Amino acid sequence: MGTLLKTEQLGRHILVEYYNCDKEVLKDHKKIEEYMKTAAIEAKATIVQSVFHLFNPWGVSGAVIISESHLTIHTWPEYGYAAVDLFTCGDSVNPWDAFDHLSEVLGAEKTETTEVPRGLVDKIRHFAHEDLGDIKFKPDCK
Amino acid sequence: MGTLLKTEQLGRHILVEYYNCDKEVLKDHKKIEEYMKTAAIEAKATIVQSVFHLFNPWGVSGAVIISESHLTIHTWPEYGYAAVDLFTCGDSVNPWDAFDHLSEVLGAEKTETTEVPRGLVDKIRHFAHEDLGDIKFKPDCK
Repeated sequence: MGTLLKTEQLGRHILVEYYNCDKEVLKDHKKIEEYMKTAAIEAKATIVQSVFHLFNPWGVSGAVIISESHLTIHTWPEYGYAAVDLFTCGDSVNPWDAFDHLSEVLGAEKTETTEVPRGLVDKIRHFAHEDLGDIKFKPDCK
Repeated sequence: MGTLLKTEQLGRHILVEYYNCDKEVLKDHKKIEEYMKTAAIEAKATIVQSVFHLFNPWGVSGAVIISESHLTIHTWPEYGYAAVDLFTCGDSVNPWDAFDHLSEVLGAEKTETTEVPRGLVDKIRHFAHEDLGDIKFKPDCK
């Protein structure tokens, strides 16, 4: 029985496509902001700052900066579609909890996700000219 | 001679890893904010709002919301590493111009990129229950 590979990385990034969402929700920038913040809390992230914008005639864009990186959203209410990014670092947060929360509150019938490692420690070491010593998360992760 | 495939998508998203950057730049949140905004301008994007945060003891996180989606950055000065996302929609902007600009001002010796289509029109149509009619960008893209 082989031992599983373990890779070290600074962050993990989930790219999410939400299809067939509740169109009324997708055009409500107050709800979207609230849901993105509760998604951050569900993931056990610490919210630093957020910006949300309602476009004319509709469609919401926004970002929540968390101590552990960021969550962003862009909605196209007319197509029931939202593009979401959940980028977290450290092992005290779980972006999949944010994903589950958003799936539910956006009423997404269909979801697709891709998880991408960000800041692979072996790569950072490989390209560096000096010995970087111990590579670790900062006390507050970032 | 075959005809090239053409796919329609709402947005394009470039995930960038910048290695071996200028460490002094990566810890300067004022410069990082300035460079991210000039990157947006180089891409011919319209800046809506931005948030940047300097972490203790160092490392910068920030997002620039543009009419055409967003640009984000997270820096780890001690490792010379930055994770950047360049997400744009519409054909009037070119995220690769933002990439080139940031490569230069961050002094990145090594870069790696992945381009991901966001909001593929055929998928949105496929999962929808109703006929969505013409799928197009809004006048102001989002």
